[in-house]
Amino acid sequence: MYTKFDSEIIVRPSEIDINRHVHQSVYFDYVLFARWDQMKRCYKMSMEEFFKRGYSWATKSAYFEFNKPIFLGDKIIVRTWVEGAKQKSVKVCFQILKKETEKIAAEGYFVYVLINAKTGKPENIPEDIIKIYSV
Amino acid sequence: MYTKFDSEIIVRPSEIDINRHVHQSVYFDYVLFARWDQMKRCYKMSMEEFFKRGYSWATKSAYFEFNKPIFLGDKIIVRTWVEGAKQKSVKVCFQILKKETEKIAAEGYFVYVLINAKTGKPENIPEDIIKIYSV
Amino acid sequence: MYTKFDSEIIVRPSEIDINRHVHQSVYFDYVLFARWDQMKRCYKMSMEEFFKRGYSWATKSAYFEFNKPIFLGDKIIVRTWVEGAKQKSVKVCFQILKKETEKIAAEGYFVYVLINAKTGKPENIPEDIIKIYSV
Amino acid sequence: MYTKFDSEIIVRPSEIDINRHVHQSVYFDYVLFARWDQMKRCYKMSMEEFFKRGYSWATKSAYFEFNKPIFLGDKIIVRTWVEGAKQKSVKVCFQILKKETEKIAAEGYFVYVLINAKTGKPENIPEDIIKIYSV
Repeated sequence: MYTKFDSEIIVRPSEIDINRHVHQSVYFDYVLFARWDQMKRCYKMSMEEFFKRGYSWATKSAYFEFNKPIFLGDKIIVRTWVEGAKQKSVKVCFQILKKETEKIAAEGYFVYVLINAKTGKPENIPEDIIKIYSV
Repeated sequence: MYTKFDSEIIVRPSEIDINRHVHQSVYFDYVLFARWDQMKRCYKMSMEEFFKRGYSWATKSAYFEFNKPIFLGDKIIVRTWVEGAKQKSVKVCFQILKKETEKIAAEGYFVYVLINAKTGKPENIPEDIIKIYSV
Repeated sequence: MYTKFDSEIIVRPSEIDINRHVHQSVYFDYVLFARWDQMKRCYKMSMEEFFKRGYSWATKSAYFEFNKPIFLGDKIIVRTWVEGAKQKSVKVCFQILKKETEKIAAEGYFVYVLINAKTGKPENIPEDIIKIYSV
Repeated sequence: MYTKFDSEIIVRPSEIDINRHVHQSVYFDYVLFARWDQMKRCYKMSMEEFFKRGYSWATKSAYFEFNKPIFLGDKIIVRTWVEGAKQKSVKVCFQILKKETEKIAAEGYFVYVLINAKTGKPENIPEDIIKIYSV
Protein backbone atom coordinates (compact mmCIF):
# COMPACT_ATOMS: atom_id res chain seq x y z
CA MET A 1 0.00 0.00 0.00
CA TYR A 2 1.32 3.39 -0.99
CA THR A 3 1.15 6.65 0.98
CA LYS A 4 -1.82 8.98 0.60
CA PHE A 5 -1.02 12.68 0.25
CA ASP A 6 -3.30 15.70 0.74
CA SER A 7 -3.50 19.07 -1.00
CA GLU A 8 -5.83 21.80 0.16
CA ILE A 9 -7.89 23.87 -2.25
CA ILE A 10 -10.12 26.91 -1.72
CA VAL A 11 -13.11 26.95 -4.06
CA ARG A 12 -13.26 30.10 -6.20
CA PRO A 13 -16.49 31.90 -7.21
CA SER A 14 -15.66 31.40 -10.90
CA GLU A 15 -15.91 27.62 -10.37
CA ILE A 16 -19.59 27.68 -9.42
CA ASP A 17 -21.99 26.84 -12.23
CA ILE A 18 -25.67 27.30 -13.06
CA ASN A 19 -26.58 24.70 -10.38
CA ARG A 20 -24.85 26.81 -7.69
CA HIS A 21 -22.17 24.23 -6.90
CA VAL A 22 -18.68 23.55 -8.25
CA HIS A 23 -18.88 22.71 -11.96
CA GLN A 24 -18.06 19.07 -12.71
CA SER A 25 -15.14 19.71 -15.07
CA VAL A 26 -13.38 21.69 -12.33
CA TYR A 27 -12.86 18.42 -10.40
CA PHE A 28 -10.44 17.39 -13.17
CA ASP A 29 -8.41 20.52 -12.49
CA TYR A 30 -8.49 20.03 -8.72
CA VAL A 31 -6.95 16.55 -9.11
CA LEU A 32 -4.41 17.83 -11.63
CA PHE A 33 -3.41 20.57 -9.19
CA ALA A 34 -3.08 18.08 -6.33
CA ARG A 35 -0.83 15.74 -8.35
CA TRP A 36 1.31 18.64 -9.55
CA ASP A 37 1.58 19.96 -5.98
CA GLN A 38 2.34 16.53 -4.53
CA MET A 39 4.91 15.63 -7.20
CA LYS A 40 7.13 18.42 -5.91
CA ARG A 41 6.18 18.54 -2.24
CA CYS A 42 5.65 14.84 -1.44
CA TYR A 43 7.44 12.74 -4.09
CA LYS A 44 10.30 15.25 -4.43
CA MET A 45 10.33 15.08 -8.23
CA SER A 46 8.51 18.07 -9.69
CA MET A 47 6.81 18.24 -13.07
CA GLU A 48 9.62 20.58 -14.17
CA GLU A 49 12.16 17.81 -13.52
CA PHE A 50 10.14 15.44 -15.70
CA PHE A 51 10.19 18.08 -18.46
CA LYS A 52 13.98 18.45 -18.03
CA ARG A 53 14.44 14.73 -18.58
CA GLY A 54 12.33 14.92 -21.73
CA TYR A 55 9.24 13.32 -20.20
CA SER A 56 5.68 14.37 -19.65
CA TRP A 57 2.59 12.61 -18.23
CA ALA A 58 -0.52 12.13 -20.36
CA THR A 59 -3.92 11.07 -19.02
CA LYS A 60 -4.94 7.73 -20.56
CA SER A 61 -8.24 7.38 -18.73
CA ALA A 62 -10.14 8.85 -15.80
CA TYR A 63 -13.11 7.84 -13.68
CA PHE A 64 -15.20 10.08 -11.41
CA GLU A 65 -17.95 9.40 -8.89
CA PHE A 66 -19.78 12.48 -7.67
CA ASN A 67 -21.18 11.95 -4.18
CA LYS A 68 -21.89 15.39 -2.73
CA PRO A 69 -21.96 18.83 -4.30
CA ILE A 70 -19.19 21.28 -3.33
CA PHE A 71 -20.30 24.82 -2.56
CA LEU A 72 -18.73 28.27 -2.61
CA GLY A 73 -16.99 28.74 0.71
CA ASP A 74 -16.06 25.05 1.06
CA LYS A 75 -12.46 24.20 1.78
CA ILE A 76 -11.58 20.89 0.24
CA ILE A 77 -8.84 18.31 0.49
CA VAL A 78 -7.70 16.43 -2.60
CA ARG A 79 -6.16 13.15 -1.46
CA THR A 80 -4.29 11.06 -4.02
CA TRP A 81 -2.24 7.88 -3.93
CA VAL A 82 -0.58 5.50 -6.37
CA GLU A 83 -2.48 2.24 -6.60
CA GLY A 84 -0.13 0.46 -8.95
CA ALA A 85 2.23 0.82 -11.87
CA LYS A 86 2.63 -1.00 -15.16
CA GLN A 87 5.50 -0.76 -17.63
CA LYS A 88 4.28 2.49 -19.16
CA SER A 89 1.51 3.70 -16.87
CA VAL A 90 0.59 4.53 -13.30
CA LYS A 91 -2.86 4.29 -11.72
CA VAL A 92 -3.55 7.09 -9.24
CA CYS A 93 -6.65 7.10 -7.04
CA PHE A 94 -8.18 10.25 -5.61
CA GLN A 95 -10.73 11.40 -3.09
CA ILE A 96 -12.04 14.93 -2.84
CA LEU A 97 -13.06 15.55 0.78
CA LYS A 98 -14.81 18.42 2.50
CA LYS A 99 -12.21 19.70 4.93
CA GLU A 100 -14.59 20.37 7.78
CA THR A 101 -16.47 17.08 7.81
CA GLU A 102 -13.95 14.80 6.04
CA LYS A 103 -16.95 13.54 4.02
CA ILE A 104 -16.14 12.36 0.49
CA ALA A 105 -17.51 14.72 -2.16
CA ALA A 106 -16.05 12.76 -5.09
CA GLU A 107 -13.67 9.92 -5.77
CA GLY A 108 -12.17 8.00 -8.67
CA TYR A 109 -8.90 7.40 -10.46
CA PHE A 110 -6.62 8.53 -13.27
CA VAL A 111 -4.35 6.34 -15.40
CA TYR A 112 -1.32 8.36 -16.47
CA VAL A 113 1.07 7.30 -19.22
CA LEU A 114 4.68 8.46 -19.30
CA ILE A 115 5.38 10.01 -22.69
CA ASN A 116 8.33 11.39 -24.57
CA ALA A 117 7.66 15.14 -24.42
CA LYS A 118 8.85 15.61 -28.02
CA THR A 119 7.24 12.68 -29.83
CA GLY A 120 4.26 12.24 -27.53
CA LYS A 121 4.84 8.46 -27.66
CA PRO A 122 4.60 6.31 -24.48
CA GLU A 123 7.88 5.35 -22.83
CA ASN A 124 8.85 2.70 -20.30
CA ILE A 125 8.90 4.21 -16.82
CA PRO A 126 12.56 4.20 -15.66
CA GLU A 127 13.48 2.31 -12.48
CA ASP A 128 14.31 5.43 -10.48
CA ILE A 129 10.92 6.97 -11.21
CA ILE A 130 9.13 3.76 -10.20
CA LYS A 131 11.07 4.01 -6.96
CA ILE A 132 10.10 7.63 -6.38
CA TYR A 133 6.43 6.69 -6.61
CA SER A 134 6.82 3.60 -4.41
CA VAL A 135 6.42 5.45 -1.14
CA MET B 1 -30.23 0.02 -29.58
CA TYR B 2 -30.83 3.73 -29.28
CA THR B 3 -30.09 6.42 -31.85
CA LYS B 4 -26.70 8.17 -31.88
CA PHE B 5 -26.76 11.96 -32.27
CA ASP B 6 -23.96 14.31 -33.31
CA SER B 7 -23.05 17.86 -32.26
CA GLU B 8 -20.24 19.81 -33.90
CA ILE B 9 -17.77 21.86 -31.89
CA ILE B 10 -15.01 24.22 -32.98
CA VAL B 11 -12.01 24.15 -30.64
CA ARG B 12 -11.22 27.58 -29.15
CA PRO B 13 -7.69 28.88 -28.44
CA SER B 14 -8.53 29.29 -24.75
CA GLU B 15 -9.03 25.52 -24.52
CA ILE B 16 -5.43 24.66 -25.38
CA ASP B 17 -3.19 23.93 -22.41
CA ILE B 18 0.53 23.83 -21.63
CA ASN B 19 0.87 20.63 -23.73
CA ARG B 20 -0.48 22.45 -26.80
CA HIS B 21 -3.62 20.34 -27.12
CA VAL B 22 -7.16 20.63 -25.73
CA HIS B 23 -7.05 20.53 -21.94
CA GLN B 24 -8.55 17.34 -20.47
CA SER B 25 -11.24 19.00 -18.36
CA VAL B 26 -12.64 20.69 -21.47
CA TYR B 27 -13.82 17.27 -22.73
CA PHE B 28 -16.34 17.29 -19.86
CA ASP B 29 -17.74 20.56 -21.18
CA TYR B 30 -17.83 19.33 -24.78
CA VAL B 31 -20.00 16.36 -23.75
CA LEU B 32 -22.20 18.59 -21.58
CA PHE B 33 -22.69 20.94 -24.53
CA ALA B 34 -23.55 18.04 -26.83
CA ARG B 35 -26.18 16.63 -24.47
CA TRP B 36 -27.69 20.06 -23.89
CA ASP B 37 -27.78 20.69 -27.66
CA GLN B 38 -29.21 17.25 -28.42
CA MET B 39 -31.86 17.40 -25.69
CA LYS B 40 -33.51 20.27 -27.52
CA ARG B 41 -32.64 19.48 -31.13
CA CYS B 42 -32.85 15.66 -31.18
CA TYR B 43 -34.96 14.51 -28.20
CA LYS B 44 -37.30 17.55 -28.41
CA MET B 45 -37.27 18.14 -24.66
CA SER B 46 -34.87 20.95 -23.78
CA MET B 47 -33.08 21.43 -20.47
CA GLU B 48 -35.38 24.43 -19.89
CA GLU B 49 -38.42 22.13 -20.05
CA PHE B 50 -36.85 19.90 -17.41
CA PHE B 51 -36.35 22.98 -15.22
CA LYS B 52 -40.00 23.98 -15.78
CA ARG B 53 -41.16 20.59 -14.52
CA GLY B 54 -38.98 21.01 -11.43
CA TYR B 55 -36.31 18.55 -12.56
CA SER B 56 -32.62 18.77 -13.24
CA TRP B 57 -29.95 16.21 -14.21
CA ALA B 58 -26.95 15.59 -11.98
CA THR B 59 -23.86 13.63 -13.02
CA LYS B 60 -23.48 10.53 -10.82
CA SER B 61 -20.33 9.20 -12.49
CA ALA B 62 -18.24 9.67 -15.60
CA TYR B 63 -15.56 7.71 -17.43
CA PHE B 64 -13.12 9.02 -20.06
CA GLU B 65 -10.60 7.33 -22.34
CA PHE B 66 -8.24 9.69 -24.10
CA ASN B 67 -7.04 8.22 -27.39
CA LYS B 68 -5.70 11.10 -29.49
CA PRO B 69 -4.94 14.70 -28.63
CA ILE B 70 -7.19 17.37 -30.12
CA PHE B 71 -5.42 20.41 -31.54
CA LEU B 72 -6.28 24.04 -32.20
CA GLY B 73 -7.96 24.17 -35.59
CA ASP B 74 -9.60 20.75 -35.22
CA LYS B 75 -13.30 20.48 -35.83
CA ILE B 76 -14.80 17.78 -33.68
CA ILE B 77 -17.99 15.81 -33.47
CA VAL B 78 -19.41 14.83 -30.10
CA ARG B 79 -21.59 11.73 -30.59
CA THR B 80 -23.78 10.60 -27.70
CA TRP B 81 -26.40 7.92 -27.20
CA VAL B 82 -28.45 6.45 -24.39
CA GLU B 83 -27.22 2.98 -23.49
CA GLY B 84 -29.82 2.19 -20.90
CA ALA B 85 -32.02 3.55 -18.13
CA LYS B 86 -32.70 2.53 -14.55
CA GLN B 87 -35.43 3.79 -12.24
CA LYS B 88 -33.57 6.98 -11.35
CA SER B 89 -30.64 7.17 -13.78
CA VAL B 90 -29.65 7.08 -17.43
CA LYS B 91 -26.33 5.90 -18.86
CA VAL B 92 -25.17 7.96 -21.82
CA CYS B 93 -22.16 6.92 -23.93
CA PHE B 94 -20.09 9.39 -25.91
CA GLN B 95 -17.42 9.50 -28.57
CA ILE B 96 -15.45 12.59 -29.48
CA LEU B 97 -14.40 12.27 -33.12
CA LYS B 98 -12.15 14.35 -35.34
CA LYS B 99 -14.51 15.61 -38.03
CA GLU B 100 -12.09 15.23 -40.90
CA THR B 101 -10.88 11.69 -40.25
CA GLU B 102 -13.77 10.34 -38.11
CA LYS B 103 -11.02 8.95 -35.82
CA ILE B 104 -11.98 8.67 -32.15
CA ALA B 105 -10.13 11.19 -29.98
CA ALA B 106 -11.89 10.17 -26.76
CA GLU B 107 -14.78 8.02 -25.57
CA GLY B 108 -16.55 7.06 -22.39
CA TYR B 109 -19.85 7.46 -20.58
CA PHE B 110 -21.81 9.53 -18.10
CA VAL B 111 -24.40 8.30 -15.63
CA TYR B 112 -26.97 11.03 -15.04
CA VAL B 113 -29.47 11.01 -12.18
CA LEU B 114 -32.79 12.83 -12.40
CA ILE B 115 -33.11 15.11 -9.40
CA ASN B 116 -35.70 17.39 -7.87
CA ALA B 117 -34.34 20.83 -8.75
CA LYS B 118 -35.32 22.21 -5.33
CA THR B 119 -34.28 19.45 -2.95
CA GLY B 120 -31.47 18.00 -5.06
CA LYS B 121 -32.78 14.50 -4.22
CA PRO B 122 -33.01 11.76 -6.89
CA GLU B 123 -36.45 11.14 -8.38
CA ASN B 124 -37.97 8.29 -10.36
CA ILE B 125 -37.80 9.06 -14.07
CA PRO B 126 -41.40 9.55 -15.28
CA GLU B 127 -42.74 7.27 -18.05
CA ASP B 128 -43.00 10.05 -20.63
CA ILE B 129 -39.35 11.00 -20.17
CA ILE B 130 -38.25 7.38 -20.47
CA LYS B 131 -40.17 7.34 -23.76
CA ILE B 132 -38.53 10.53 -25.01
CA TYR B 133 -35.09 8.98 -24.53
CA SER B 134 -36.12 5.65 -26.08
CA VAL B 135 -35.44 6.71 -29.65
CA MET C 1 -7.36 56.82 0.62
CA TYR C 2 -8.82 53.43 1.32
CA THR C 3 -7.04 50.36 2.69
CA LYS C 4 -5.39 47.89 0.32
CA PHE C 5 -6.02 44.21 1.04
CA ASP C 6 -4.11 41.15 -0.19
CA SER C 7 -5.20 37.63 -1.14
CA GLU C 8 -2.73 34.91 -2.04
CA ILE C 9 -3.29 32.56 -4.97
CA ILE C 10 -1.36 29.51 -6.12
CA VAL C 11 -1.34 29.14 -9.90
CA ARG C 12 -2.82 25.81 -11.06
CA PRO C 13 -1.55 23.79 -14.05
CA SER C 14 -4.98 24.02 -15.72
CA GLU C 15 -4.57 27.81 -15.91
CA ILE C 16 -1.54 27.69 -18.21
CA ASP C 17 -2.30 28.18 -21.89
CA ILE C 18 -0.64 27.50 -25.25
CA ASN C 19 1.92 30.26 -24.53
CA ARG C 20 3.03 28.48 -21.34
CA HIS C 21 1.90 31.22 -18.99
CA VAL C 22 -1.35 31.95 -17.14
CA HIS C 23 -4.18 32.46 -19.62
CA GLN C 24 -5.44 36.04 -19.76
CA SER C 25 -9.07 35.32 -18.85
CA VAL C 26 -7.91 33.66 -15.62
CA TYR C 27 -6.86 37.09 -14.31
CA PHE C 28 -10.55 37.99 -14.20
CA ASP C 29 -11.15 35.03 -11.91
CA TYR C 30 -8.17 35.83 -9.71
CA VAL C 31 -9.55 39.32 -9.03
CA LEU C 32 -13.05 37.94 -8.47
CA PHE C 33 -11.64 35.45 -5.97
CA ALA C 34 -9.70 38.19 -4.17
CA ARG C 35 -12.76 40.43 -3.83
CA TRP C 36 -14.91 37.54 -2.63
CA ASP C 37 -12.22 36.53 -0.12
CA GLN C 38 -11.69 40.11 1.08
CA MET C 39 -15.41 40.88 1.38
CA LYS C 40 -15.67 38.31 4.13
CA ARG C 41 -12.20 38.46 5.66
CA CYS C 42 -11.40 42.19 5.42
CA TYR C 43 -14.67 44.12 5.03
CA LYS C 44 -16.62 41.72 7.30
CA MET C 45 -19.61 41.57 4.96
CA SER C 46 -19.50 38.39 2.89
CA MET C 47 -21.10 37.86 -0.53
CA GLU C 48 -23.61 35.57 1.20
CA GLU C 49 -24.77 38.50 3.37
CA PHE C 50 -25.32 40.57 0.24
CA PHE C 51 -27.42 37.72 -1.18
CA LYS C 52 -29.41 37.56 2.07
CA ARG C 53 -30.27 41.24 1.77
CA GLY C 54 -31.43 40.68 -1.80
CA TYR C 55 -28.39 42.29 -3.41
CA SER C 56 -25.71 41.13 -5.79
CA TRP C 57 -22.75 42.87 -7.48
CA ALA C 58 -22.52 43.02 -11.27
CA THR C 59 -19.43 44.05 -13.20
CA LYS C 60 -20.15 47.21 -15.22
CA SER C 61 -16.68 47.57 -16.73
CA ALA C 62 -13.15 46.27 -16.30
CA TYR C 63 -9.68 47.32 -17.41
CA PHE C 64 -6.52 45.20 -17.47
CA GLU C 65 -2.87 45.97 -18.14
CA PHE C 66 -0.66 42.94 -18.57
CA ASN C 67 2.92 43.70 -17.57
CA LYS C 68 4.64 40.39 -16.95
CA PRO C 69 3.59 36.81 -17.67
CA ILE C 70 2.75 34.59 -14.69
CA PHE C 71 4.17 31.08 -14.80
CA LEU C 72 3.32 27.70 -13.32
CA GLY C 73 4.87 27.59 -9.87
CA ASP C 74 4.41 31.33 -9.23
CA LYS C 75 2.73 32.40 -6.03
CA ILE C 76 0.82 35.60 -6.57
CA ILE C 77 -0.77 38.29 -4.48
CA VAL C 78 -3.98 39.95 -5.64
CA ARG C 79 -4.17 43.38 -4.01
CA THR C 80 -7.42 45.32 -4.29
CA TRP C 81 -8.75 48.57 -2.90
CA VAL C 82 -11.78 50.81 -3.29
CA GLU C 83 -10.92 53.95 -5.18
CA GLY C 84 -14.28 55.63 -4.93
CA ALA C 85 -18.03 55.14 -4.85
CA LYS C 86 -20.94 56.68 -6.70
CA GLN C 87 -24.65 56.36 -5.94
CA LYS C 88 -24.96 52.95 -7.58
CA SER C 89 -21.39 51.81 -8.25
CA VAL C 90 -17.98 51.24 -6.70
CA LYS C 91 -14.62 51.46 -8.47
CA VAL C 92 -12.13 48.86 -7.25
CA CYS C 93 -8.48 48.91 -8.33
CA PHE C 94 -6.29 45.82 -8.38
CA GLN C 95 -2.69 44.80 -8.74
CA ILE C 96 -1.54 41.23 -9.32
CA LEU C 97 1.95 40.89 -7.85
CA LYS C 98 4.50 38.09 -7.93
CA LYS C 99 4.84 37.14 -4.27
CA GLU C 100 8.60 36.59 -4.37
CA THR C 101 9.64 39.80 -6.10
CA GLU C 102 6.61 42.04 -5.39
CA LYS C 103 6.82 42.98 -9.12
CA ILE C 104 3.50 43.91 -10.73
CA ALA C 105 2.35 41.28 -13.22
CA ALA C 106 -0.92 43.04 -14.03
CA GLU C 107 -3.06 45.92 -12.82
CA GLY C 108 -6.33 47.63 -13.59
CA TYR C 109 -9.78 48.23 -12.17
CA PHE C 110 -13.34 46.96 -12.01
CA VAL C 111 -16.50 49.05 -11.72
CA TYR C 112 -19.14 47.09 -9.83
CA VAL C 113 -22.81 48.01 -9.74
CA LEU C 114 -25.05 46.98 -6.84
CA ILE C 115 -28.09 45.20 -8.25
CA ASN C 116 -31.33 43.79 -6.98
CA ALA C 117 -30.66 40.05 -7.08
CA LYS C 118 -34.18 39.32 -8.34
CA THR C 119 -34.74 42.02 -10.94
CA GLY C 120 -31.11 42.52 -11.93
CA LYS C 121 -31.71 46.30 -11.85
CA PRO C 122 -29.16 48.71 -10.28
CA GLU C 123 -29.94 49.94 -6.77
CA ASN C 124 -28.66 52.82 -4.68
CA ILE C 125 -25.90 51.63 -2.37
CA PRO C 126 -27.25 51.88 1.22
CA GLU C 127 -25.39 54.06 3.73
CA ASP C 128 -24.22 51.16 5.89
CA ILE C 129 -22.63 49.42 2.89
CA ILE C 130 -20.87 52.63 1.84
CA LYS C 131 -19.50 52.76 5.38
CA ILE C 132 -18.31 49.15 5.29
CA TYR C 133 -16.27 49.90 2.18
CA SER C 134 -14.90 53.19 3.58
CA VAL C 135 -12.01 51.61 5.43
CA MET D 1 -11.89 53.04 -41.26
CA TYR D 2 -11.14 49.35 -41.25
CA THR D 3 -13.52 46.48 -41.98
CA LYS D 4 -15.57 44.88 -39.22
CA PHE D 5 -15.69 41.10 -39.17
CA ASP D 6 -18.14 38.78 -37.41
CA SER D 7 -17.74 35.38 -35.77
CA GLU D 8 -20.67 33.42 -34.40
CA ILE D 9 -20.54 31.65 -31.07
CA ILE D 10 -23.00 29.30 -29.36
CA VAL D 11 -23.01 29.71 -25.57
CA ARG D 12 -22.21 26.47 -23.76
CA PRO D 13 -23.80 25.37 -20.44
CA SER D 14 -20.36 25.24 -18.79
CA GLU D 15 -20.02 29.00 -19.36
CA ILE D 16 -22.96 29.93 -17.14
CA ASP D 17 -22.03 31.00 -13.62
CA ILE D 18 -23.72 31.33 -10.23
CA ASN D 19 -25.69 34.35 -11.52
CA ARG D 20 -27.23 32.23 -14.31
CA HIS D 21 -25.61 34.15 -17.16
CA VAL D 22 -22.32 33.84 -19.05
CA HIS D 23 -19.40 34.28 -16.65
CA GLN D 24 -17.48 37.50 -17.20
CA SER D 25 -14.08 35.91 -17.87
CA VAL D 26 -15.59 33.91 -20.73
CA TYR D 27 -15.98 37.16 -22.72
CA PHE D 28 -12.18 37.26 -22.93
CA ASP D 29 -12.22 33.85 -24.56
CA TYR D 30 -15.04 34.77 -26.95
CA VAL D 31 -13.00 37.71 -28.28
CA LEU D 32 -9.85 35.59 -28.48
CA PHE D 33 -11.77 32.98 -30.48
CA ALA D 34 -13.16 35.63 -32.81
CA ARG D 35 -9.73 37.13 -33.52
CA TRP D 36 -8.21 33.69 -34.07
CA ASP D 37 -11.08 32.75 -36.38
CA GLN D 38 -10.94 36.06 -38.28
CA MET D 39 -7.14 36.02 -38.66
CA LYS D 40 -7.44 32.95 -40.84
CA ARG D 41 -10.85 33.46 -42.44
CA CYS D 42 -10.91 37.24 -42.97
CA TYR D 43 -7.31 38.55 -42.90
CA LYS D 44 -5.92 35.40 -44.59
CA MET D 45 -2.97 35.14 -42.22
CA SER D 46 -3.64 32.52 -39.56
CA MET D 47 -2.12 32.39 -36.08
CA GLU D 48 -0.15 29.34 -37.28
CA GLU D 49 1.52 31.49 -39.96
CA PHE D 50 2.55 34.00 -37.29
CA PHE D 51 4.08 31.14 -35.29
CA LYS D 52 5.94 29.92 -38.41
CA ARG D 53 7.52 33.35 -38.84
CA GLY D 54 8.62 33.31 -35.20
CA TYR D 55 5.97 35.77 -34.01
CA SER D 56 3.17 35.67 -31.52
CA TRP D 57 0.64 38.24 -30.24
CA ALA D 58 0.51 39.17 -26.58
CA THR D 59 -2.29 41.15 -24.94
CA LYS D 60 -0.94 44.45 -23.56
CA SER D 61 -4.24 45.77 -22.23
CA ALA D 62 -7.95 45.12 -22.47
CA TYR D 63 -11.13 47.04 -21.64
CA PHE D 64 -14.65 45.64 -21.24
CA GLU D 65 -18.06 47.22 -20.80
CA PHE D 66 -20.82 44.83 -19.83
CA ASN D 67 -24.20 46.06 -21.03
CA LYS D 68 -26.56 43.09 -21.02
CA PRO D 69 -26.20 39.60 -19.57
CA ILE D 70 -25.87 36.70 -22.03
CA PHE D 71 -27.96 33.63 -21.27
CA LEU D 72 -27.79 29.93 -22.05
CA GLY D 73 -29.41 29.44 -25.43
CA ASP D 74 -28.24 32.81 -26.77
CA LYS D 75 -26.44 32.87 -30.09
CA ILE D 76 -23.95 35.68 -30.17
CA ILE D 77 -21.90 37.55 -32.71
CA VAL D 78 -18.40 38.73 -31.84
CA ARG D 79 -17.58 41.67 -34.12
CA THR D 80 -14.00 42.96 -34.17
CA TRP D 81 -12.09 45.54 -36.14
CA VAL D 82 -8.67 47.17 -36.14
CA GLU D 83 -8.85 50.74 -34.91
CA GLY D 84 -5.25 51.63 -35.41
CA ALA D 85 -1.67 50.41 -35.35
CA LYS D 86 1.52 51.69 -33.77
CA GLN D 87 5.08 50.53 -34.38
CA LYS D 88 4.75 47.51 -32.10
CA SER D 89 1.04 47.25 -31.28
CA VAL D 90 -2.44 47.06 -32.76
CA LYS D 91 -5.65 48.26 -31.13
CA VAL D 92 -8.62 46.01 -31.86
CA CYS D 93 -12.17 46.98 -30.88
CA PHE D 94 -14.92 44.47 -30.27
CA GLN D 95 -18.66 44.26 -29.78
CA ILE D 96 -20.48 41.18 -28.54
CA LEU D 97 -23.98 41.23 -29.98
CA LYS D 98 -27.03 39.07 -29.40
CA LYS D 99 -27.64 37.49 -32.79
CA GLU D 100 -31.41 37.74 -32.69
CA THR D 101 -31.77 41.35 -31.64
CA GLU D 102 -28.38 42.77 -32.70
CA LYS D 103 -28.32 44.46 -29.28
CA ILE D 104 -24.86 45.02 -27.79
CA ALA D 105 -24.21 42.77 -24.80
CA ALA D 106 -20.64 43.97 -24.29
CA GLU D 107 -18.00 46.08 -25.99
CA GLY D 108 -14.44 47.24 -25.53
CA TYR D 109 -10.97 46.84 -26.96
CA PHE D 110 -7.71 44.89 -26.80
CA VAL D 111 -4.21 46.23 -27.43
CA TYR D 112 -2.06 43.45 -28.85
CA VAL D 113 1.74 43.60 -29.05
CA LEU D 114 3.68 41.62 -31.64
CA ILE D 115 6.33 39.60 -29.84
CA ASN D 116 9.21 37.35 -30.74
CA ALA D 117 7.83 33.91 -29.92
CA LYS D 118 11.17 32.76 -28.48
CA THR D 119 12.29 35.77 -26.43
CA GLY D 120 8.83 37.15 -25.66
CA LYS D 121 10.17 40.66 -26.45
CA PRO D 122 8.11 43.15 -28.52
CA GLU D 123 9.05 43.47 -32.20
CA ASN D 124 8.31 46.09 -34.84
CA ILE D 125 5.32 45.01 -36.91
CA PRO D 126 6.63 44.28 -40.45
CA GLU D 127 5.19 46.24 -43.39
CA ASP D 128 3.44 43.26 -44.95
CA ILE D 129 1.60 42.50 -41.71
CA ILE D 130 0.51 46.14 -41.36
CA LYS D 131 -0.88 45.81 -44.88
CA ILE D 132 -2.76 42.59 -44.08
CA TYR D 133 -4.56 44.35 -41.23
CA SER D 134 -5.28 47.47 -43.29
CA VAL D 135 -8.44 46.15 -44.86
